[in-house]
Amino acid sequence: MSGSTKGFMAMKGAGYYSRATIGAKHVMDNAAGLVLDALERMDPDDDGSVFRVTDMGAADGGTSLAMWGRVLARVREKVPGRPIEIVYTDLPRNDFSQTFQNALGLTGQETYAGKVPEVYVLASATSFHEAILPPGTLDLGFSATASHYIASVPCEIADHVHMVGAAPEERAAYEATGAADWERMLLARAQEMKPGARLALFNFGIDEEGRYLGNTGGINMFDTFADLWRGLRDEGVISPAEFAATNFPQCYRTEAQFTAPFLDEQGPVWQAGLRLEHVEARVVRCPFEHNYSETGQGAAEFARDYIPTLRSWSEPTFVNGLSDNRTLEDKAAIINEFYGRYQARVAANPTGHAMDYVHIYLVARKEG
Amino acid sequence: MSGSTKGFMAMKGAGYYSRATIGAKHVMDNAAGLVLDALERMDPDDDGSVFRVTDMGAADGGTSLAMWGRVLARVREKVPGRPIEIVYTDLPRNDFSQTFQNALGLTGQETYAGKVPEVYVLASATSFHEAILPPGTLDLGFSATASHYIASVPCEIADHVHMVGAAPEERAAYEATGAADWERMLLARAQEMKPGARLALFNFGIDEEGRYLGNTGGINMFDTFADLWRGLRDEGVISPAEFAATNFPQCYRTEAQFTAPFLDEQGPVWQAGLRLEHVEARVVRCPFEHNYSETGQGAAEFARDYIPTLRSWSEPTFVNGLSDNRTLEDKAAIINEFYGRYQARVAANPTGHAMDYVHIYLVARKEG
Repeated sequence: MSGSTKGFMAMKGAGYYSRATIGAKHVMDNAAGLVLDALERMDPDDDGSVFRVTDMGAADGGTSLAMWGRVLARVREKVPGRPIEIVYTDLPRNDFSQTFQNALGLTGQETYAGKVPEVYVLASATSFHEAILPPGTLDLGFSATASHYIASVPCEIADHVHMVGAAPEERAAYEATGAADWERMLLARAQEMKPGARLALFNFGIDEEGRYLGNTGGINMFDTFADLWRGLRDEGVISPAEFAATNFPQCYRTEAQFTAPFLDEQGPVWQAGLRLEHVEARVVRCPFEHNYSETGQGAAEFARDYIPTLRSWSEPTFVNGLSDNRTLEDKAAIINEFYGRYQARVAANPTGHAMDYVHIYLVARKEG
Repeated sequence: MSGSTKGFMAMKGAGYYSRATIGAKHVMDNAAGLVLDALERMDPDDDGSVFRVTDMGAADGGTSLAMWGRVLARVREKVPGRPIEIVYTDLPRNDFSQTFQNALGLTGQETYAGKVPEVYVLASATSFHEAILPPGTLDLGFSATASHYIASVPCEIADHVHMVGAAPEERAAYEATGAADWERMLLARAQEMKPGARLALFNFGIDEEGRYLGNTGGINMFDTFADLWRGLRDEGVISPAEFAATNFPQCYRTEAQFTAPFLDEQGPVWQAGLRLEHVEARVVRCPFEHNYSETGQGAAEFARDYIPTLRSWSEPTFVNGLSDNRTLEDKAAIINEFYGRYQARVAANPTGHAMDYVHIYLVARKEG
């Protein structure tokens, strides 16, 4: 998930992070079929030119390795004479060394590199709200679980930490920023894509039943975050200003919001040649809740396994909310207390806690 | 300088590292003219295709920023209609996040990005002994102060730490590895280059007077390294096995060794179409010794300023020589003692200490 940094978790080591992102890997593995389907609808010439793909907001690249293994093997079959360039992108502070080590097979994870011939691995730190590649050079653009990050927050959320729990006018501001960023993202891609290229974007969203990440019928994860953070405020552990400054820089969009730019024939995205080929919502079950429910695992063990998957992406938001005047040690103590409370709450009453993934899956083509 | 990691120096911060590499920046700045001359000999079509350059072994990219500013501005003038891709390469453990932050202007260093229009910044962690890019896609390949690193050391050096001070049969083994790596490097580039493309390679070497980095008439820097490291061995601070295991994975080549593959018309480099256009040796004066000599700086201050420039690239070799059984703290103490002794030696008797840069500058073209 783009935009996250490992933060204090980095001290816990790579294995910890890898386990915490297993659900994101499930999302990718399940979605590989959509990318392969898109590839089958393409008819690329085997003309020796470079076949270029991007993995935008790839973070350490680990969760998409297996998917790319399948997709790049199929590209190799379709165009045996074309070298493939895969460009991993994320923000400049991303640990690109880790991304390269994962992709090149230096961390023990299985990778396509060295198996699928003629694949060249590259990286970019240009935001996907801008042009990452020169015009007309992209064959297949891909991004999963990244576009919910907005370039900047439009306002503070007074009594919550995420736009899903914000007051109506706050929420509207986030949705407006989210719409502008989404349009910018799509226009930048439309410019990069060759005629006939495909774009596969799988993002956190809100489905027709109102479900979203960590809110699929049980206990609402974001409400729990807000409740526990509010508790620290009310006890004086953090200040009211710190609570107010803690806002996920994210917008969860509905299917209608995701598809709107593709459906407005007068709008810039349609005019730029992007056409929607496929859209669907899917829920991917929380692997930790699943394991707990199926195996009779104890509540304490479930809580211990479950919290890291929340922490792996949410921690930077809570750290960033804290005052710059605090020492690193002070911040770490507060953050550890916060997630400790979440863990204790789950351990005491585990039923209903689950970070099920709710994604809106879109595939688009560039008119040729 | 590729292959180095900041190691224990990282704790001292980015400014420390930047000052320590000022000499390497001087080398780049002085060499920009050679790259601009090469560019003038090229006659690229302004056909809208991507103009691709590489900066191989770029480390954090900081020392070449000013050079690229001049070169890319000239590329922009020559082919106003062609987007430019610049690909920074180094080994997978390089801090590519820092490289991107420098190149994209996030660290306060002046950069071409945002000034020269239509420049796309990318990175690769593929070794320059392999193909970094697809065949026939490179317009201008560049590498400075990187190819002295060899892929693996052929043997231990019994009574020294660098091949320049090794026994004849040891030195011959390093030279053989250096020749093989150099040929592999050139062949990989020949494959990547378009017809008419240029390759500018500026590397540490040994000039006709036998001068090389840190050995230009005064006190030999590598002999000082070896002497001080030997002293730690003789005192029992490090073991004889650790001394023997400490070997710079480097080969300094003579001009004849650098140019040999270009001159053998039956050899693979000539056959692959690479032609030597220019070769020369240059000495770039040590900025710290220069400052000391010109300003009447005190010996202690000179020693304090001078040691970091040695340490910035040599430290990993000494750290790697130490036993894996040692704790990180133990290693740090030994390394600090070692550089502390070097500093004390310079402070006590500064005359003759200088890390003058000796490079062999080569420019080649790919036959079209």
